[in-house]
Amino acid sequence: MHLVMIGGSDAGISAALRARELDRTAEITLVVGDAFPNFSICGLPFYLSGEISDWRTLAHRTHEEIESHGIRVLLNTWAESIDPGAHRMTVRAPDGRHQEIAYDRLVVATGAVPVRPSLPGLDDPRVFLLHSMEDSFRLHAFLEKSTPQSAVIVGAGYIGLEMADALTHRGIRVTLIEQADHVLPTVDPDFGAQLDEYLQSHGVTVMTGSRVRGLERTVQGVHVVGEPDWQITADLVLVVVGVAPDTDLAARAGIFTGIRGAIRVDRQMRTNLPDIWAAGDCVETYHRLLDTNTYLPLGTTAHKQGRVAGENMIGGNRVYEGSLGTQVVKVFDWAIGRTGLKASEARAAGYSPRTTRLTTWDHKVYYPGATPLTVSITGDAETGRLLGGQLLGHWQGQVAKRLDILAAALYHQMTVDGLNDLDLSYTPPLSSPWDPVQMAAQQWITSLGDQCS
Amino acid sequence: MHLVMIGGSDAGISAALRARELDRTAEITLVVGDAFPNFSICGLPFYLSGEISDWRTLAHRTHEEIESHGIRVLLNTWAESIDPGAHRMTVRAPDGRHQEIAYDRLVVATGAVPVRPSLPGLDDPRVFLLHSMEDSFRLHAFLEKSTPQSAVIVGAGYIGLEMADALTHRGIRVTLIEQADHVLPTVDPDFGAQLDEYLQSHGVTVMTGSRVRGLERTVQGVHVVGEPDWQITADLVLVVVGVAPDTDLAARAGIFTGIRGAIRVDRQMRTNLPDIWAAGDCVETYHRLLDTNTYLPLGTTAHKQGRVAGENMIGGNRVYEGSLGTQVVKVFDWAIGRTGLKASEARAAGYSPRTTRLTTWDHKVYYPGATPLTVSITGDAETGRLLGGQLLGHWQGQVAKRLDILAAALYHQMTVDGLNDLDLSYTPPLSSPWDPVQMAAQQWITSLGDQCS
Repeated sequence: MHLVMIGGSDAGISAALRARELDRTAEITLVVGDAFPNFSICGLPFYLSGEISDWRTLAHRTHEEIESHGIRVLLNTWAESIDPGAHRMTVRAPDGRHQEIAYDRLVVATGAVPVRPSLPGLDDPRVFLLHSMEDSFRLHAFLEKSTPQSAVIVGAGYIGLEMADALTHRGIRVTLIEQADHVLPTVDPDFGAQLDEYLQSHGVTVMTGSRVRGLERTVQGVHVVGEPDWQITADLVLVVVGVAPDTDLAARAGIFTGIRGAIRVDRQMRTNLPDIWAAGDCVETYHRLLDTNTYLPLGTTAHKQGRVAGENMIGGNRVYEGSLGTQVVKVFDWAIGRTGLKASEARAAGYSPRTTRLTTWDHKVYYPGATPLTVSITGDAETGRLLGGQLLGHWQGQVAKRLDILAAALYHQMTVDGLNDLDLSYTPPLSSPWDPVQMAAQQWITSLGDQCS
Repeated sequence: MHLVMIGGSDAGISAALRARELDRTAEITLVVGDAFPNFSICGLPFYLSGEISDWRTLAHRTHEEIESHGIRVLLNTWAESIDPGAHRMTVRAPDGRHQEIAYDRLVVATGAVPVRPSLPGLDDPRVFLLHSMEDSFRLHAFLEKSTPQSAVIVGAGYIGLEMADALTHRGIRVTLIEQADHVLPTVDPDFGAQLDEYLQSHGVTVMTGSRVRGLERTVQGVHVVGEPDWQITADLVLVVVGVAPDTDLAARAGIFTGIRGAIRVDRQMRTNLPDIWAAGDCVETYHRLLDTNTYLPLGTTAHKQGRVAGENMIGGNRVYEGSLGTQVVKVFDWAIGRTGLKASEARAAGYSPRTTRLTTWDHKVYYPGATPLTVSITGDAETGRLLGGQLLGHWQGQVAKRLDILAAALYHQMTVDGLNDLDLSYTPPLSSPWDPVQMAAQQWITSLGDQCS
């Protein structure tokens, strides 16, 4: 049996490794469009900041390690078309020639491409989009050779924030432009507002509620013009306004697409076509709380979906249990993250969300080094069900893995009050007898009582 | 209605605060045997190490804060007897006189006392047991005035380990004596053995499989003699071999006791007597995985049980959902913890435990500062159910709150494989796309497959 994965990033690799783990005899081929299989694109900001000197370390696994599992890796090989009826695909090999590959079962894991807004002036060589290894080599070379002094970053999502940190780390003055009224629009406004202030305290100029109208090439730099009525000239412009699924190949093969053009899959990661699965940034993602598909491309999700596809393509029947939208980002010394639904999302989904926010210490304040930690809990006022949570604090305050306590609780449909029943770890240097997420839960319950009485 | 709590530590305070939160009119009295209500006895090692200069900061809440909730606090008031039929108790007031207090509902939260082994020589003034604030004042004064150069610590449980760290921090040469064949007998032997080595690398002499036969007073210091055939002279001896429930008062009142003399309670924290609840270190604790009572005194548990008792004594019907035995300790730069059952406990409970251990990095190794993290997973080989987990690594590696992911999973009876379905947070500086606990779960599954095939 010949299993083929199109795509050499998280989903494709996970599918290949899981299939190999369960089936030691199948022939497995990975068709990779570039020369960089299994690279951590989430690590690019840290390469660009100068914190990682050798980009090669960004590989989760080397080419050789992948092949040591008996997986054939075809690098610089571009999948051009799929003939689902004939179970064959056509690729353009590194030498430019077309070749046919027969498959028995296929995983489409073509990932996503950065959204390229329709703005005049994007073709300036000092303007960069950031997604692939090649993008980042080009930007890295520019940073090293042209030593820009100022940068405009368009988009204050996860990558925009990491790049604001990265470029500040290089001594570059950064202006961050965001359409929404706070940075990191995936968190609640009050959390975003706190982060706005924090970024400014680190020298980043933050312009929220701002839209770019266009870019102009000048001798001084790139002239960025926007609304409401501003203009900035910078040596470098980075446009990071999200990604879109890369599904042209799939669509041409007759694979159904849906939300934002992403491939429609069921919870076994099957497409509408026989013997074709799909996973990762190119597919719709089942959301466990919304009980419906969304488009939510994340590395963690790609790994899980790839693993499910890899198991099912060799005869398994594993179900993808869904995303909770759990995400965390480190910006300067803070970690900030979310899981589940933010208040506005919960309201849109028909819940009666109530949110409380608590600022306390990451551990007993009598022990040296305690740092403030803010926990926000969103629950349904009618049923008491936990809907989501957000955390913000110094990264050493175990922010990310405290978020995961909430993620585990959300997975199991716990109530907010149920959090208090969890037997969580405590020692004074690392927590409190009630973990801060439990203290926040208690505040949520009390405030609900106050409102009801 | 008059609610009375006997005991001013975690369980008593939690009961009082929860009752007050739900009932703003009840009269609430806290009978506290010493002058230190709501002190964090878990913080004593850090006071004794010198890391905390003012012992007053060890109070979770001050006397005034507690009273601001409308809770009357009777300090230095010793509960002498309870007359359950008459709903009255007798106390010895600070002036030595006896007084009667009438109650409608009562919580017994008398805590625990240190186990005092029957060894000759324990009455030497250079020998210390450690549990109460007074114990620690006495030891603190000794450390400051006599500046001991060497110490023997008998017992390598959580407190013994923290005190080994604390005294080393003071520049004292520490020898740690443990009966079991590794330190921290609450973790699996291989984890304990790693910790043995780590302690020795920090200058602590570790003697496992060793039993103390007696102590002799000499001019050079305290002469500690033990088996198999050793003797050590030290300036200071600390005996920390566990605690026993303090239930003399309860037993004399006709309250049933059981395991190790702890008060028998149901899952509503009711004793056998009407209108009397009990909580904290003086009671038996329901174990969620064993589905039976155990004796497992912990601060986290005391808080939860106190909260349940406080809720129920004013007419609630809350159930204590049980302990998983989750515990963590920081020793030098390591955190080490456990949740659920260790392999030997699982075997004794009738499971078919299989344990795998994985050492990986706390975050993507390409990002600076990655530290090794060891995760051990115990699951049932027949059902795949997760039974327990242990973690060990640098405290900054989010060891404690990663343990809590496992605790949350255990709470919900997940399988080991189910861990891979959890949508946990990831960013390269703080984790990996599969969290280390998920990587360990995958290794467990693979190794099980290998064994079965």
